[in-house]
Amino acid sequence: MPKKVDRQARRRLIADALMRIAADRGLEAVSLRHVAAEVGVTTGMVQHYFASKDEMMTFAVGVIGDDIGARMAEAAKDLGSSPSPRALVRAMLIQLLPLDEPRRREGRVALAFYAHAAVNPTVAAALHDDVARMIDFVAEQVRAARTASAAPKATDPAVAAAGLLALVEGLVVHVLGGHYPPDSAVAVFDAHVDALFGPPL
Amino acid sequence: MPKKVDRQARRRLIADALMRIAADRGLEAVSLRHVAAEVGVTTGMVQHYFASKDEMMTFAVGVIGDDIGARMAEAAKDLGSSPSPRALVRAMLIQLLPLDEPRRREGRVALAFYAHAAVNPTVAAALHDDVARMIDFVAEQVRAARTASAAPKATDPAVAAAGLLALVEGLVVHVLGGHYPPDSAVAVFDAHVDALFGPPL
Repeated sequence: MPKKVDRQARRRLIADALMRIAADRGLEAVSLRHVAAEVGVTTGMVQHYFASKDEMMTFAVGVIGDDIGARMAEAAKDLGSSPSPRALVRAMLIQLLPLDEPRRREGRVALAFYAHAAVNPTVAAALHDDVARMIDFVAEQVRAARTASAAPKATDPAVAAAGLLALVEGLVVHVLGGHYPPDSAVAVFDAHVDALFGPPL
Repeated sequence: MPKKVDRQARRRLIADALMRIAADRGLEAVSLRHVAAEVGVTTGMVQHYFASKDEMMTFAVGVIGDDIGARMAEAAKDLGSSPSPRALVRAMLIQLLPLDEPRRREGRVALAFYAHAAVNPTVAAALHDDVARMIDFVAEQVRAARTASAAPKATDPAVAAAGLLALVEGLVVHVLGGHYPPDSAVAVFDAHVDALFGPPL
């Protein structure tokens, strides 16, 4: 490796290798040794950039989070200057569903990470802010929709928002498990969005 | 080990060891070697009962499925002879939420299995029937509720049923990740059940 390297770029390179392994062979195949082999460096070199497997996985999930965030921002931009809350939430959250191969791969890595996080509370903590922020954002849009129109008002916006995000998470699990095709997941997602915001204008 | 053993009982013993490992240390720690050590036998002995890790994991998830099925049947029985569709679905599906330590452990194993299944389609296939059956059951109850009362009728019952099951799956992921407490998950679950079946009678 060249002596002067951009640390962040190197970390990204390693994270990409980790994600390829996790997406192809699952979490069990993710180890310092396998990641080093995939990048083509020594395990010592990987350890120079990441102190532990947990740190490496947390960084990789951060990369996925950034990618998803960028896609969401792009989708929101495509809606023009004043999208309805319904359109905005739909366009953003549909980015989480594994509807094409890149997002299927991303979903497999995320699922591997969730399973890892379920037995490693400190790893899970890295996701708390993202989840809380998404719930707040959706809750805000539900409130906005209720002010602007005749959207159903039965459920507390924060509870409704957590429900929509949990539904999306569950659809990811079911589609990745092959229990039903992506199209069915979109139908379920849309039905839920309709129930929450009222049908599209 | 005694010569005459009940094969199924031995398999169950091994599956229990696998589940303890997966619940405590995650999927990465599950190997023939670790499972053998946990049971206190040789890896050869484990291989005598399971040809592969996949077979072992599929069996373990079957055990969890049976346990959940037994809890659901018990919960349904507690409701007496003619429960409302709403009460029946609520009592059964709430068994899936990680509301106590045994169910948290069960959820961690299930999540590890989902992550494994996402990169192993043949493993995932072992769950297809269970998921399809649960969706059919919930859809049937949604239809029954709509016939019997003024439950909301907007969504196709099969789509609504898949949505409720996805929501429950997502709540499991979020609670195990510690993103919100079990009580919040129950509130989200109840709000969704209300939206689907109408409020309790």
